[in-house]
Order: sequence, then C-alpha cells, then structure tokens
Amino acid sequence: MLDNKTDALPQHQPELPTRPQLPMPKSDQVYFAEEQKGWHGYVEWEKYPDKAKRAAEILSQHKFAGVPEFQLKPLSSTNPRLEGVRWKQYHAALGPTLENLPNESWDIVKEEKAEDMIHVLDFPYNGEPPRDRLVGTTLTRNEDHFVRNHGGIPVIDENEYCLDIGGMVNNPTRLTLKDLKNENLFPRQTAVVTIQCSGTRRIEQIQEYPGDGDELINAPWGEGAIGTARWTGVSLKKVLKHCGGLKEGAGHIEFMGVDTYFKKGQVYNYVVSVPWRKVRVHEVMLAWEMNGKPLPKIHGYPLRAVVFGYIGARSVKWLARITAIPHPSTAPVQKKEYLYYTPQAGKHNASYSSGFSIQDMPVASAIISPIDKAVIIHDGAIKMRGWAYSGGGHWPERVEVSGDGGSVWYETPYEKLSQKYFHAWRLWEIDLPVDAEGWLELVARCWDNALNTQPTYVRSTWNWDLHVTSSCHRIKVFSVNRSRPATAKRLKRLEQEGIDFHPVTKPLEIDLESDDEYETEMQRRGGREPEE
Amino acid sequence: MLDNKTDALPQHQPELPTRPQLPMPKSDQVYFAEEQKGWHGYVEWEKYPDKAKRAAEILSQHKFAGVPEFQLKPLSSTNPRLEGVRWKQYHAALGPTLENLPNESWDIVKEEKAEDMIHVLDFPYNGEPPRDRLVGTTLTRNEDHFVRNHGGIPVIDENEYCLDIGGMVNNPTRLTLKDLKNENLFPRQTAVVTIQCSGTRRIEQIQEYPGDGDELINAPWGEGAIGTARWTGVSLKKVLKHCGGLKEGAGHIEFMGVDTYFKKGQVYNYVVSVPWRKVRVHEVMLAWEMNGKPLPKIHGYPLRAVVFGYIGARSVKWLARITAIPHPSTAPVQKKEYLYYTPQAGKHNASYSSGFSIQDMPVASAIISPIDKAVIIHDGAIKMRGWAYSGGGHWPERVEVSGDGGSVWYETPYEKLSQKYFHAWRLWEIDLPVDAEGWLELVARCWDNALNTQPTYVRSTWNWDLHVTSSCHRIKVFSVNRSRPATAKRLKRLEQEGIDFHPVTKPLEIDLESDDEYETEMQRRGGREPEE
Repeated sequence: MLDNKTDALPQHQPELPTRPQLPMPKSDQVYFAEEQKGWHGYVEWEKYPDKAKRAAEILSQHKFAGVPEFQLKPLSSTNPRLEGVRWKQYHAALGPTLENLPNESWDIVKEEKAEDMIHVLDFPYNGEPPRDRLVGTTLTRNEDHFVRNHGGIPVIDENEYCLDIGGMVNNPTRLTLKDLKNENLFPRQTAVVTIQCSGTRRIEQIQEYPGDGDELINAPWGEGAIGTARWTGVSLKKVLKHCGGLKEGAGHIEFMGVDTYFKKGQVYNYVVSVPWRKVRVHEVMLAWEMNGKPLPKIHGYPLRAVVFGYIGARSVKWLARITAIPHPSTAPVQKKEYLYYTPQAGKHNASYSSGFSIQDMPVASAIISPIDKAVIIHDGAIKMRGWAYSGGGHWPERVEVSGDGGSVWYETPYEKLSQKYFHAWRLWEIDLPVDAEGWLELVARCWDNALNTQPTYVRSTWNWDLHVTSSCHRIKVFSVNRSRPATAKRLKRLEQEGIDFHPVTKPLEIDLESDDEYETEMQRRGGREPEE
Repeated sequence: MLDNKTDALPQHQPELPTRPQLPMPKSDQVYFAEEQKGWHGYVEWEKYPDKAKRAAEILSQHKFAGVPEFQLKPLSSTNPRLEGVRWKQYHAALGPTLENLPNESWDIVKEEKAEDMIHVLDFPYNGEPPRDRLVGTTLTRNEDHFVRNHGGIPVIDENEYCLDIGGMVNNPTRLTLKDLKNENLFPRQTAVVTIQCSGTRRIEQIQEYPGDGDELINAPWGEGAIGTARWTGVSLKKVLKHCGGLKEGAGHIEFMGVDTYFKKGQVYNYVVSVPWRKVRVHEVMLAWEMNGKPLPKIHGYPLRAVVFGYIGARSVKWLARITAIPHPSTAPVQKKEYLYYTPQAGKHNASYSSGFSIQDMPVASAIISPIDKAVIIHDGAIKMRGWAYSGGGHWPERVEVSGDGGSVWYETPYEKLSQKYFHAWRLWEIDLPVDAEGWLELVARCWDNALNTQPTYVRSTWNWDLHVTSSCHRIKVFSVNRSRPATAKRLKRLEQEGIDFHPVTKPLEIDLESDDEYETEMQRRGGREPEE
C-alpha cells in the first residue's frame, strides 16, 4: 500500500510543453548537406575538417542559451524534466539540414516509445520507463527500453544503408545490410544483453552533492537508465575477419555513428572505440534486431553496435564506419567524456587524463519497489523488487537486502532471482521481514560471481561527472506494522471514523488518547517526574 | 568566498504576499468580549468552560483550510515561508474581538522586528534572524531575537496590567507591574539567558524524514530559533514567598498567557507549567526588560516568564495568571505538545503518555558560517563560526569541529569561545585546517560541563514531532584549495580568461587540457590500458 502523494515520480504529461522560440537567426547562406542519399539527418564532419571548422565559426558567432541549472535547486516535476534548448539552438544555427531534427526526433519519440516514458531530457532524447514495467519482465519491451541519445535521430533507408570497414584492416570493405544478413558470409549471433547508461541512478549523486553541469546534460536519471534485450546480428569479429583481419599494431576498433555531436564549440559525428580484445571474444555484435524486431529508429536502425558488459555509450547507433586503430579513440566522447574522477577532482583541477575511461560496468543494483518515501502498511513483511547487474561478463550471484540501513542483511531467495546470463541483469524479489515501525532505510546490494559488491554509500562513489552510481541503493520508507496492537488499534479507529491515514504528514483531527487513558497510563509510567 | 547562488536562505521579500480572502462567514451574532480593560486581544477561555464550549461549537460549523504541506515537497523560498491560513480563519470565525488580530500581529512584526527576519510562519508569527547577525554578538539584539508565537499578539496597557497569583498558595494575591518593580517588595533579578525553541534546526529532520504536520505548524526552523538576552525582573520564588508560600502538596507552577490557543477544535488560553524545584533555585524570572529595554510587545510586554535552561515554550509571554498546582499542567500545550517520541512512534501509534515532556534543553550547537552547499576558495583553512548551548544549567565547555564528516576533530581555540554563563550559549570560531578538495562534510559538536555531547546523525535524534534536533550539525561545502598547484593553475587561467568559477555546476567552456598535455600525461600514466 503506497502513499501515492509521495511518489517520487511525477505524473506523465503527454504533450511536450510549447517550445520557446529559438532566438537564433537562421544561417540560410550556409548549407551543410546530407552526406548520402537515403540517410536523413547525416551530415559528415569527421572526413571534412574544413567543413567542421566552418561550422565551428558559425557557432562562435552565436550566443546560445545556458545549460539549465537543475542541481542547485529541486528538479522540475514536469515531463520532460529538462529541455535541451541549447542543443536545439546548435542544430538551428547550422541551417536547413539539421535545424528541424529536434522536432523530427521528438516525433520519433512519440511514435516509438511508450506514452508514459519519463522524459529526462527532450533533446537529445533521454528517457527511462516507468518503474512498474522496468522490472516487469527480464527482457525489456522495445518501447520501454531507456534511451540516451547524444544528438538528433537520423532516419536511414535500409536499402541505401552501407557500412564502411577500414583503417588497419587488410581489406577495407563496404558491406550492405543484405551482406551482413547473408548467413553464407556471416553466422548469425544472438544474445541477451543488458545495456546500462553510466548515468543510471545519477539523481542520488546529485541529491548528495552537485557536480559537473556538462554541456551535453549529465541527465538526472533515476534507476531506469538500464534495459535488457535479445539482440540479433553478427559478431564483429567475423566481419573483421571477412575484411582480411587486422594489420599488425591494430588494438582498437572505432565506431562512428552519424549523429552530430557538439563539444565546446566544435562539431563532430559520434565516435568511440572498444579494444580488439573485446571483439576477439565475440562480445561486440553488429545488431539489426532487438527482441526479434527490426531496431527502432531511436535505437539505431538499421544497424548498431552492442558491446556486452560495457557502458552504453560504446554501443554506437546508426553505424556508418568501423575503423581499426592502434589506440583508444581520441574523439571527444571517448577522450573527454565518460571519465571517472577521484572525489577530490572537480571544476578546479579536473583534466581529461586524470579521469579513467568507463568501459566495463561494475556490479550494481536498484530497489524498484517500494519507492522512496513510501508509507507502507503491512503485517510484518515488506515486499521488495528490483534489478541487479554486473558488467564485463560477470553476473549477479546473490542479492541481499537490509531493513535497517545495512546492518542485518537478508539474502533474496534464489527461486525469486531471474535466470542467469553472462551479460544481463537479474530481477529479484523478497518479502523482507520487518518488525520495526517509523522511517526505515531499506538497502540492496549485489554480489557478482567475482565477489565484487557495491560501495556502501553514495558518497563512496561520488565523482565530479556524476557517473556510475553503483553504491548500495538506499530508500526511506515509513513502516506501519499492523501486527502490532497499538498500530492495529489506531488504524481500526481511523477506519471507523473514516479518516485516511495518508498523507502521513496530515495532522490527525482526533485526540491521540482519552483523558482517562492518559491518566491511567501516566500512573503506570510513574508520572512525568520523580516523586523525590 | 561564498557562492551566493547556493545560499540555502532565499532573499528577503519585504512585503507580505496578498492575503487570500478568508472564505469564512463572519459570526456576527456571537461576540467573545475582551476580558479586561486595556488588554486588547485577551479573551478569557480557561475560567469559562461554557464560553469555550460555545466557541468550539462555532468552530465545528466551519470547514477550515488544510495545514500547508511543506514536508513532502521542497519548502517555499518565499518570505514568509508559510502562511497560517487555518489559524487566521480560526480567529475570523470567532468574531470581532479576534478576527483582526492576525493583521494587527503582522503590523507588530513589522514594527518591532528587523526588516530582514526570516518569517518561517506569518501567523502565529514565527521568525528567525538572518544568520550573519545570529552569531554577531553574544546578546541578540531585541529586533533580531527569534519569535515562536502560538497565537495573536495582545496589546496590554502597562497601567492596566495586573498579575493574579493563586491556586495552592497561602495568600492568593493580585500584583500590578508597579508592585513587581517595587524593590522594597522584591529584589531585582537580572541574568543572561538563552531561550531556544525545541524546533531549532528542525529543517534537518524534515529533510531527512517527514514527520507530524501538526495543526499549529511544526515550523521548519533553521539554526536561528535561539537567542540570548539580558533579562531583568524578579525571581518568581520571591513573588510566591510574598504570597505566603506554597501549600502542602503544591509541586508545579502554572503560567497562563492571554493568547488564544486552538487544539483539535477546542479553544484555550496558552497554559503550561514548570516544577517548583525549578522556581526554588531562582531559575524562573518574571521579566519586564530585555537587554535593558521594556519587553517588545511581540516578546511578551509587559511581563513574561523566563525559565532558564528550559524549552522556550515554558517562558510564557503576556502573563495573566500564575497558579500553584500539585502536578504538571494538563493544559494541551503541556500535555499534548512538546513531547519527545521514540523513533518508532508516529501517526500509527503515538499517544500523549508515550512521549516525554521536553523541559531541560540538551547540549547542541550549530555551524552558522559557512553555509550549507557553499563553494569555498581558500588557502588551506576554512573559517567556521557558530553557537553552542546546553540547557538545564549546563554550559558549553568545548566545541569541536571536523572537516571529514566526524573522524578527525579539531578543538576550537578557547580564546575564540565567548564568555561562560550558566544559562547562555557560547559563540565560537575556528580556522579549520583543510587540505582536501571537493565536497567535504563539516561537522560541529559541543561538550557541556557534564560531559554530555551531541548524537552523531540526524537520524539518531529523529522523532515524530520533529523536536530538538540536537545531533551534530553537518554541512556540505565544496573546498577549492588554492595552495594546490593544479587548482592554482586552473583558477589563474579562469581569471585570465574572465571566466567566473561560480556557480560550480556551470560547465566550463574551455578545454580542460591541451592535446599535447593530454598525450604527455597519458604516456606518463602508462596509457589507458595495459600493453599486455
């Protein structure tokens, strides 16, 4: 029984608030053309430094809206939570090819995602599903799967689609989607894989301490920036083999997605890399199916990378190029983003080299039910549900919960733990025995098969860019134990008098005790004061 | 150097927001007359049960506004923070004598209190001073002293004033103010006394867990519901002696203030009691002077009780009667309010007998500077200032602060501790050595002369009615240590480029590191990954 008034997740508002007029003059003179027929929304920047330079010059002539401040004051309860005005203005500034992409992307959100998604940021689109459905099934429905985009959503004609594989491969090759789907060329690969944004549960870090208000908003995610799907495609290793294998010295594989990415006044496509050793063990898939259906546009149609056990940022969508390179990519997303800083790093001293790259995701878990600040009337046990996950090929072996802030732990029953996968989460459930009343701190932690477990407190993992909130998940609930006589008596009286217990902060209009009861009880207790 | 944008205390708004129309029909038929000539705003209820019953009947015919919800959502940053609509409506419902008291009381606030008080509740008036002045002087200026009223402010003509002393005294007596000031009858008493509301620092409990949303709002106080004055008057013991002393069996002394008090549909005057043993040691004064000036109206003019070392609620203002009784008062403020519950008590089970009476105030302290969430650029030390207090005749012996959440403690230098008094706070100051950067938890605790110290966490002291937040005071500050080379370099660069460091969450528009610096540094660090 939850007190809905305290639900930390505000109600869905189906309509996007009216967009403000973009105060940007349109740069009609300059036209950054689309790169390929049938690839709407794809402007190539990486191949053409002069073009990228021209775009940067245009950007430098504008004054853009600031990044919205949401850390030093309470987060809005609107849906979307945040509006990406600055990012929309960037697109508008670059003229006709890109200027309408924010609106088109929003139309795709409405078309492809569940109506009641929590829109953490409207553009670039960031959204997570309502918590009820987050742990409803091991495989997340496509329309519920979280989305963390870094730019507008391109719309690519499958028939015009091709993938260029180059760099340090022996035979640079262009493959069509038909080629990739040709099982004579490439055996089909399928795997259940959880993808997690390194921002999952970031809101807890923000609530503890504000951090970097990055230009591409460090979105204030709840527990839902994680999802699991059965992905189908081909192993990248097979594709590279098809290209004659790697040249001596190649150590990393770089992906380019076609979305336009902005960083400190410069324009890029979305580029990151993964190590060859990851590819070699068949943990990098080029996927065109998600849960048996073609990829939704918002999830990378027609082809994306799925990197098992890694941060979601490496599972590049709308793949245009794959390049074998000697070292990790120096593109900004790889070099300047998704870095994990020591807690004493911040605006005053952080540098790119002082943060380490987030690749393998550590062990983590979340309590999805009950919700934080819930008022729970129960008979001695509180049902808890949630997810647990460990990246890098590890899997959750055990989930434990505590009803007292982390002193006594209960193991969740193994029969309530969902199936093991090498690269996916496990859902869990437990009826936690609870005698105590009042505010309790419920905690969950997971142990993975390598005996890794979660740091104790949010502070233990706090870092300037607010990544990877892997600390034990803690929520506050107000426990009302009906199996206790005084509580049963009070609840019965409220029921008889038609008084709702909720919200818990609403003062009772009845006296808490009759004068007679008070006198009797005070005598039993020896009065208010000693007699001598 | 503080980041003003993060100041937890919002700006003062000098004008009260327009009051809503009271939706209450005026009860013109019934007139609850003032009790005594020259005592404006004093309706006597205690002597006339039938009259009080009639008032309760009238109240029962109305539907009043709800108590404002401020715990389950962020507290308003308006000033006043909360509006006492329900309490105003109570007064309006009882007709001409009382209906305008809320407006008159607000006029007195504006007349007598500093312009920049933080108005926690506009009616009954609750206000605390701005923090700069809170610890500016050991003796709080009268216009800055916090106010926690429970009803409207009566305006009493000193020449018409009289005090009735009765009950279990041998000679019930009526005294005028002139009598009390007659040094031939009573020797003058003067003392420096701190008065503290049991709600001081309540906001910390609310932020941790919501609690009782009492009908008379459990005001969301900061650190300022405490103040110190030199009070002048007479010892109550001398007055009782003048009345022939107490009869056998008298153990408590009950005070009645003339303000009208409402509780669960009933009407009262403000009545509480203190034990005779407290009076006997000259720790209860009847005071007419505050810091050498006549009491302000808002502080109880012409006469109030000052109970040393006790909760402020016992220091009754606008004293009309003093009654010797055998046991603690059973009036609602004493019996049903200011109770201290065990943490498992709440709406589901709390009774009046199960909470104990808050009388002596325990040891407590507060950090007043810096403020929570401050971003502090320093050279290796952070200046901290605050107050420390212990009730019941104890005094602060030592104040300690920690820069690491309570592991290592530094004693504040004794020469920076203000003078000792038996019944007053001490102000303290320290330059805390701070090497660490990023978010730090600064903590303060006081040891009193009885070796009492403060509970560790807010949770340690959380209680349903949100009283007595005496846990170690903890604030978060973002430390930027200019004596560290990387920080000095970054700050210098920002200064050169004209970029403000504040607010700390605003993303930097500059690159954090040049490509060359990055390459050099990454090589020193052995690259992003192992070579083999």
